[in-house]
Amino acid sequence: MATVKLLADDELSPEARVIFDDIRRTRQSDFVNNFWRALAHDPKTLGRTWDSLKQVMAPGALEPKVKEMLYVAVSIAHGCSYCIHSHTASARAKGMTDQEYAELIAIVGMAAETNRLVTALGVAVDDAFLVDPPKSGPQDF
Amino acid sequence: MATVKLLADDELSPEARVIFDDIRRTRQSDFVNNFWRALAHDPKTLGRTWDSLKQVMAPGALEPKVKEMLYVAVSIAHGCSYCIHSHTASARAKGMTDQEYAELIAIVGMAAETNRLVTALGVAVDDAFLVDPPKSGPQDF
Amino acid sequence: MATVKLLADDELSPEARVIFDDIRRTRQSDFVNNFWRALAHDPKTLGRTWDSLKQVMAPGALEPKVKEMLYVAVSIAHGCSYCIHSHTASARAKGMTDQEYAELIAIVGMAAETNRLVTALGVAVDDAFLVDPPKSGPQDF
Amino acid sequence: MATVKLLADDELSPEARVIFDDIRRTRQSDFVNNFWRALAHDPKTLGRTWDSLKQVMAPGALEPKVKEMLYVAVSIAHGCSYCIHSHTASARAKGMTDQEYAELIAIVGMAAETNRLVTALGVAVDDAFLVDPPKSGPQDF
Amino acid sequence: MATVKLLADDELSPEARVIFDDIRRTRQSDFVNNFWRALAHDPKTLGRTWDSLKQVMAPGALEPKVKEMLYVAVSIAHGCSYCIHSHTASARAKGMTDQEYAELIAIVGMAAETNRLVTALGVAVDDAFLVDPPKSGPQDF
Amino acid sequence: MATVKLLADDELSPEARVIFDDIRRTRQSDFVNNFWRALAHDPKTLGRTWDSLKQVMAPGALEPKVKEMLYVAVSIAHGCSYCIHSHTASARAKGMTDQEYAELIAIVGMAAETNRLVTALGVAVDDAFLVDPPKSGPQDF
Repeated sequence: MATVKLLADDELSPEARVIFDDIRRTRQSDFVNNFWRALAHDPKTLGRTWDSLKQVMAPGALEPKVKEMLYVAVSIAHGCSYCIHSHTASARAKGMTDQEYAELIAIVGMAAETNRLVTALGVAVDDAFLVDPPKSGPQDF
Repeated sequence: MATVKLLADDELSPEARVIFDDIRRTRQSDFVNNFWRALAHDPKTLGRTWDSLKQVMAPGALEPKVKEMLYVAVSIAHGCSYCIHSHTASARAKGMTDQEYAELIAIVGMAAETNRLVTALGVAVDDAFLVDPPKSGPQDF
Repeated sequence: MATVKLLADDELSPEARVIFDDIRRTRQSDFVNNFWRALAHDPKTLGRTWDSLKQVMAPGALEPKVKEMLYVAVSIAHGCSYCIHSHTASARAKGMTDQEYAELIAIVGMAAETNRLVTALGVAVDDAFLVDPPKSGPQDF
Repeated sequence: MATVKLLADDELSPEARVIFDDIRRTRQSDFVNNFWRALAHDPKTLGRTWDSLKQVMAPGALEPKVKEMLYVAVSIAHGCSYCIHSHTASARAKGMTDQEYAELIAIVGMAAETNRLVTALGVAVDDAFLVDPPKSGPQDF
Repeated sequence: MATVKLLADDELSPEARVIFDDIRRTRQSDFVNNFWRALAHDPKTLGRTWDSLKQVMAPGALEPKVKEMLYVAVSIAHGCSYCIHSHTASARAKGMTDQEYAELIAIVGMAAETNRLVTALGVAVDDAFLVDPPKSGPQDF
Repeated sequence: MATVKLLADDELSPEARVIFDDIRRTRQSDFVNNFWRALAHDPKTLGRTWDSLKQVMAPGALEPKVKEMLYVAVSIAHGCSYCIHSHTASARAKGMTDQEYAELIAIVGMAAETNRLVTALGVAVDDAFLVDPPKSGPQDF
């Protein structure tokens, strides 16, 4: 099931090939996963997305493993099965242990539960959580 | 805007009071935020939710700060403004730096983008990402 | 905050007025809530939506109270604050007790949690849950 | 497609086995569905989730059938195919008729439609729907 | 995977058959896709949905192609794989070019990203974007 | 309500100032809306997001007005009130008429309804909608 054909290496436009080469070089692996083969029909979005992903997932203040775990958490909440599978695999490849994975899953479930409870009840944000709280007196409960 | 009144301390049932006491003792703070004051109408869900949250967010393989950041990521994807504000405040209280926050936000946005691109294109999960890949030969592109 | 002005009674087009009259007659109340005042700019969608809602929420196999509770559950999952408030009020007006409301909220939260756990883990649907299960032998775990 | 292997009975840890025994005893059936077999890698989340589910779905003010229908409604809105299939099967097992199912589906669809219309238009919540309406005069439209 | 059996032509109720006839006549094609075959168990919802769809997707101020592209965009954001496939096919049948499709996908991804960034940061709506801005002085940043 | 302070012009870092200058030059307007003032704490994400947005929303095969309408549709489905307001204003500024807006809203609502109906029923994608349909015989209903 797909809305476009996945492009094999010999079906790539020259522009897409350049980006595939960079994916392979950056990841030091010959494997290019299906997402890029679907995006390759539009080299502009392929290139922009790859450049953004490289920048966002590059080593920074957060560990690469933690970055992948955040990616997994969002993908679960958005219900993207492909993204869940690919980024769970990446998180494991970057060192996520079974125990860490278990904690990740538990937090995502718990957050989903309290997210919906809060939304159901229409809870107002406490002044204490605001960056710019109103100056006028205490909370009114 | 709320579907129930927030309960002040002197409006709590005895069952709810016991749980508020545990929240205060566990957090070593007198402050009890609005979420619990809305949930307090139903001591059973109040108690179960607090117990689960204590278990899930307790120190484990993941740092408390990282746990809060995962909570924030899910809350953003679910569009729960209250939860975003409260858990962003918690993540900061547990040591999240401005740089880490900036990276968190960037990952959530990036994941949202690729989640939707993948979903749009109907990309099939690569065998390489499966825990139990089919045995029958290489990927067919 | 709105993307259109709410229309007062004396700002309605003749087509919209006819529908407002039917809303008032059907509900036996003079009160017309903001949703319809925002929709009234487009009498076609106003009329179609009102007709559909009347048909869907009419007495049927399910109690009116249960119908409103299902509406609330969906509105929470979609994060529509207005809809949560209006249908929670309707459910109460149709007899939902505090205990029933507490159970509704708890189920919505619990469903959100297991929904995300299942999605995270990529659990395959058991043959036992399929209307047309494959004929070829037992489940393979 | 899964991010973990489903555990067969003879692959369970002693802690997970205890919970499977309780699932079987409580449901008076030998069948344990895939969700629990995926969760069983983490006995802590397995146990907590099962305990919560037992509490939330236990007979209460709402009929068991209605509870399952609310679960289905939320699962549809969250796009969890597994949960939709398993809880639709449960609702039927607990007495949901074809007519009730048809009404459930229609309400979920209708709610989705008006949820998005309201969100599109940014409709403000009517004072009449608020638990604590502002005291200062009539609505301003 | 389905929660109901798809109905073949010779399994339709007389009421459902009338609607299938109208679908075929309106589309000038014998092909009736699976959605209608699943809905056909409930002729009331089948009829109401078909009537609404005919009205909403009829030629209007927007080109039919643009209407289908909007449908695709929403279906992606809701994660409905069936709807994505069927309406992407319809958009192509109504003239959507590969370039237009590439732009559609890129916009959906970009919107998802900024939607989540804005939600994460809790950005207040600028007065300039309000239909009824407050009269009292300039924005307070 | 925000998780960061909105930055005024005289609070910008030199890197952020450069991007604000480009926003003003590109839009030929002195007005810089709150989204960019919130993002400005992180010049890297500010710059990347602005560059991507410029590329994605630039004149192309689709009219600028249609591009904004697609943005609005996605923002509604994601429940981002800020984005709905800002892009609805942009769509109007680029020529969206009241009639076109009414049709946009109606499509978004209709899509939401059928998205959820399809998801509820677990409808399988018709071979006719697949880019690479299986070769093995007709559909089996």
